[in-house]
Amino acid sequence: MQKMHGLRQTRWTPVNRMLILIGMNAALPEITTDLAADLAALPPALADHLRGIAAAPAPFGGFPGLRLLPQDPALPQQKAAALAALLARNYGAAIENRAAVAGRLADLRAELARRGLAGLIIPLTDEFHGEYLPLRAQRLTWLTGFTGSAGLCIVLPERAALWSDGRYTLQLRQQVDAGLFELLHSIDQPPTDWLRKALRPGEKLGYDAWLHTEDALKRFAAAAQAAKAELVAVSDNPVDSVWTDQPPPPLAPVVPQPEIYAGQSSAAKRAAIAAGLHQQGVDAVLLTLPESICWLLNIRGGDVKHTPFALAMAVLRQDATLDLFIDTRKLAPETLAHLGPQIRLQPPEALDAALQALGAAHLTVQADPATAGAYPLQLLEQAGARLKRADDPCLLPKACKNAVELDGIRAAHLRDGAAICRFLAWLASDAQEGGVDELQAQDKLEACRRLDNSLRDLSFTSISGAGPNGAVVHYRATPETNRRLEPGNLYLIDSGGQYPDGTTDITRTIAIGTPTAEMRDAFTRVLKGHIAIARAKFPDGTAGQQLDALARYALWQAGLDYDHGTGHGVGAYLSVHEGPHRIAKGGSMVALKPGMIVSNEPGYYKTGAFGIRIENLVAVQVEIEKAENGKAWLGFETLTRAPIDRNLIETGLLSPEEIDWVNAYHAQVWTDIAPRLDDATRSWLEAATARL
Amino acid sequence: MQKMHGLRQTRWTPVNRMLILIGMNAALPEITTDLAADLAALPPALADHLRGIAAAPAPFGGFPGLRLLPQDPALPQQKAAALAALLARNYGAAIENRAAVAGRLADLRAELARRGLAGLIIPLTDEFHGEYLPLRAQRLTWLTGFTGSAGLCIVLPERAALWSDGRYTLQLRQQVDAGLFELLHSIDQPPTDWLRKALRPGEKLGYDAWLHTEDALKRFAAAAQAAKAELVAVSDNPVDSVWTDQPPPPLAPVVPQPEIYAGQSSAAKRAAIAAGLHQQGVDAVLLTLPESICWLLNIRGGDVKHTPFALAMAVLRQDATLDLFIDTRKLAPETLAHLGPQIRLQPPEALDAALQALGAAHLTVQADPATAGAYPLQLLEQAGARLKRADDPCLLPKACKNAVELDGIRAAHLRDGAAICRFLAWLASDAQEGGVDELQAQDKLEACRRLDNSLRDLSFTSISGAGPNGAVVHYRATPETNRRLEPGNLYLIDSGGQYPDGTTDITRTIAIGTPTAEMRDAFTRVLKGHIAIARAKFPDGTAGQQLDALARYALWQAGLDYDHGTGHGVGAYLSVHEGPHRIAKGGSMVALKPGMIVSNEPGYYKTGAFGIRIENLVAVQVEIEKAENGKAWLGFETLTRAPIDRNLIETGLLSPEEIDWVNAYHAQVWTDIAPRLDDATRSWLEAATARL
Repeated sequence: MQKMHGLRQTRWTPVNRMLILIGMNAALPEITTDLAADLAALPPALADHLRGIAAAPAPFGGFPGLRLLPQDPALPQQKAAALAALLARNYGAAIENRAAVAGRLADLRAELARRGLAGLIIPLTDEFHGEYLPLRAQRLTWLTGFTGSAGLCIVLPERAALWSDGRYTLQLRQQVDAGLFELLHSIDQPPTDWLRKALRPGEKLGYDAWLHTEDALKRFAAAAQAAKAELVAVSDNPVDSVWTDQPPPPLAPVVPQPEIYAGQSSAAKRAAIAAGLHQQGVDAVLLTLPESICWLLNIRGGDVKHTPFALAMAVLRQDATLDLFIDTRKLAPETLAHLGPQIRLQPPEALDAALQALGAAHLTVQADPATAGAYPLQLLEQAGARLKRADDPCLLPKACKNAVELDGIRAAHLRDGAAICRFLAWLASDAQEGGVDELQAQDKLEACRRLDNSLRDLSFTSISGAGPNGAVVHYRATPETNRRLEPGNLYLIDSGGQYPDGTTDITRTIAIGTPTAEMRDAFTRVLKGHIAIARAKFPDGTAGQQLDALARYALWQAGLDYDHGTGHGVGAYLSVHEGPHRIAKGGSMVALKPGMIVSNEPGYYKTGAFGIRIENLVAVQVEIEKAENGKAWLGFETLTRAPIDRNLIETGLLSPEEIDWVNAYHAQVWTDIAPRLDDATRSWLEAATARL
Repeated sequence: MQKMHGLRQTRWTPVNRMLILIGMNAALPEITTDLAADLAALPPALADHLRGIAAAPAPFGGFPGLRLLPQDPALPQQKAAALAALLARNYGAAIENRAAVAGRLADLRAELARRGLAGLIIPLTDEFHGEYLPLRAQRLTWLTGFTGSAGLCIVLPERAALWSDGRYTLQLRQQVDAGLFELLHSIDQPPTDWLRKALRPGEKLGYDAWLHTEDALKRFAAAAQAAKAELVAVSDNPVDSVWTDQPPPPLAPVVPQPEIYAGQSSAAKRAAIAAGLHQQGVDAVLLTLPESICWLLNIRGGDVKHTPFALAMAVLRQDATLDLFIDTRKLAPETLAHLGPQIRLQPPEALDAALQALGAAHLTVQADPATAGAYPLQLLEQAGARLKRADDPCLLPKACKNAVELDGIRAAHLRDGAAICRFLAWLASDAQEGGVDELQAQDKLEACRRLDNSLRDLSFTSISGAGPNGAVVHYRATPETNRRLEPGNLYLIDSGGQYPDGTTDITRTIAIGTPTAEMRDAFTRVLKGHIAIARAKFPDGTAGQQLDALARYALWQAGLDYDHGTGHGVGAYLSVHEGPHRIAKGGSMVALKPGMIVSNEPGYYKTGAFGIRIENLVAVQVEIEKAENGKAWLGFETLTRAPIDRNLIETGLLSPEEIDWVNAYHAQVWTDIAPRLDDATRSWLEAATARL
């Protein structure tokens, strides 16, 4: 999946798409019921629990949290499911109710005035600073109506402004009332510039310190200071005070991730991290990233879309014990036993007091300023802790998959590859005449994946783009944008699955009918870049940044390029985007290490015409234990198993080594996937993997 | 020329080699004279002037400063030349007089005690922080006897230590008395670690703030603080107080660099830089880099080896006037007129007062903390200036050569290429049987270059390495290390010339007799990397760092690599190493821009066996004014003209595009160089440039 650059951070799925999915896919029984009355008739705790379940995602239309709902004769399971679906639909509809925006903005201004604030910064993030927001944290959408994946809003007494980036220029205008909000471009008209002019001397601008990193706050503070105004932290978010029907935090089940997939016990992981803390004289580390906590504790949840996160925070001590701040209603019974006595369960609201206590004891506490909001860091320092700002210590060990995880990831890719092959065979037979559209195609692929019962979710909303839509890197098909796959089109589909043993992410570009010479030329250059990465061997210590140009060289020679990175890290049944490594132009010099998973996805996009991307996942592996210069030599093992469209390959542009690579890759696909297919699909695969 | 990583900064020629050159090459007449008596008999000012001339380099054995020595009947030119040569020989001999080291160390400790200091840090640099040190600044060599190109010494009351890097482990032991100095490895046993243990609480450790950047000082200060000791700036360097026969600053002539080579007047350059200062609200900029001042004023000097620098400092004002702090005895008469009335000449010792005055006026003054010593920055701040720390504003415009400079550089490469071809033809005929050694070969190349009367100097001491010596990246042949070029050897020669219209730098690797398959394989992989860079096209905004791996890919595939950067910037009749751009693994993200010169020099070194490097200089040029994505597309024009040894190319490893590149390059060499050669050399060139 292609990672995009956002305004302050990056999200991958527009909220509206998620709501459409809930609305469309939830298998609603006949509902003849009055939701409000039904909820009022329930014991309040049960109604609250149901609201939390409904505020969690419903992969493939079902609410996993229902299985943990306490049994109550007043609420049979079928009725609970119906009420949850209705609640979720209402939550979504209310958040996107654009008619209510003017009233909400007025309510917020009144609330700010009550608090003595001139304004408020409303970023598009929550306290976990992740890729997906639970409904409760969709404050910006609720306030403005904008459903894009990158945004920032600032409300002042007489002005308000909403920023997004170039991808959303049109969508901003369609969704947001320009009479209420100035609609601005985050790069060309940065929020700090706007603030410098819009703030008046002496005014207080509020911010929720959970939702901004320290670095981001420094920039806002400088802008406020330039205007002789002041930045003021709010103790609770003013939006929440006026959002009367705000959904509660999501309640999706938290389940153990068995060691047969995780490959290492949580106790062993905690002991290793704790030993590192000890070595560095750190007493405790605050963990704010759900992926770190899920990895460390070998648990998985379902609180945000497409990603098996349990939203929680934790403090790990030097003695390897851990305080887990989590709503225990989420914990499946087997999870309690799995966590064991070294894990102290505490409610989320106990975190403040716990940080205060660490500070009062003058302990040395580590936290990651790049991924945590400023709030807990400030709290720790004010309470007297010695704060050590450093990378989340789980990031690197989580990124380097162990042998068991790698086996699982390989196995998941075989099943996923079979699904992709079924889909591609269908595409080759049924979609060559213009009778299939983008939404149908992505639904077909989902259906192919769901034939595997282990599939837990898609790993992101598929990017299914025909013709010019394929050139929109962040494209998501909607009924309004939906195009048929017409002869002469290129069709690009970027998709992935969440399996208990691994997360997949694959892009294939397919010729519908006969491709042009230009398409074949560009496709082959993208393929050359893909092969250059796939074949690369390099000394230990090399960062992905150093490899990036290898993927671009053949395109560059023709004056072509792509405006995104070449590869992102991928989790083991966790987030489809994870750090700390990547293959991209700037930034991180984190070295690639054995066991890291990274995507290999060069592309080319001709605006208004077609898009090309070829994406496989690869694992970093040792090629030579000790090369001539004493260093280990590393390379990549390609994990993804699906043919690359031979109709788009201009063999004359490939070197003998590149042709060998394609043939060897296709032979591997054939060997691994053919046994998993029916006869017809197998025949298709034989032709699709024939030697060049 | 290959750039090396030094201890604190990098130098390219061991001092001893320079002294050998002076001793060997100075054409000394019959000297029957008593130097001390002769000098004492001269008017003191004249004797001083002569000492300054003798303290400057003598390219090809002559002292250029003699022409500016005032005419005096007491000192005919021939006698002046003889005295200068004697003085220079004495300076060199005294600095390297290892028998005196114990006494010098005792003297220094006594001086430090007088000043209430426990110790002193003695880095291997001067206030210009450049690649070559004038004799006067060779304090570390004078104090320790060590002549390596990277080093740091710290003297304490009872301990002293000397650091260098792995290249100099052996040389340290040979040259330095381990009873006086602990001999340490700068990476494995960092000076800051040593200081933490060696310093006692309350001790004061002195440093000369001219000789350390602010960042370097921060590290020393932290180490001192950890030992509860204190870092104290000294007002004048204590070494100078005890170095009674310290040479004076060098006095080499400063001459105009004509606009037919510079392509732009100094007035226009100053106006452009001054406009930038104005735009950023900066009143004045302190320039401490001789290359910036030489470029800005269109002047050249000869104060350090192999580089036409006039050592000087300057303050450029927003009104485009400039204060030049320089010893006016260096200025040729025509230079005064060239500089014109906008340049105020001041003696070097007036700089302090000038910075004080800028501070007293509370002006905003820019200075570059990466290239300037801490002293002037501290002085400016203490005097009341608003100090803006920012890159030297001359670096980027100097790096981007204008059309006239590029024409000159191309012309210089044609003449240099002819010299290289004469040398390579000689090597092919006379050096195939083992009858030639490394020193003879480099002397022959120098002789070939000196056939061109415009040659001003070599641009660095040649690296002339046969067999295993070729694998020593920083190798310089000495009588002790000198090897014959034997059949079965690879011979590597890295060399360059300083011409008034351009600076050259070229490496060729030549098979003596019949090369092995391993040599041909490695050579061809190095060549593939060289061609990948030479052919690269890339979007504007790309940094050299992004291209580095292209040069390594073919080597990496075989588990091979080279432990140096791929390319460094090169000046226009200035330093053979200049920034801010380069092609290397880490560090600078400065984008390559049209007109930048950079070396393209991948290599491979098999310790104890052979070394390979193929180096051409290239200029960044525009390939497509506006590519599809709106950006300019850039590429490289190869400037160097000399054949690449066909005997070492394994054609089967090259792609058709790579073979085309070699053939096209050789055709260009033939076309450009053949008309400049005698018949015999031309015949050789015809064969050497035949199609693969």
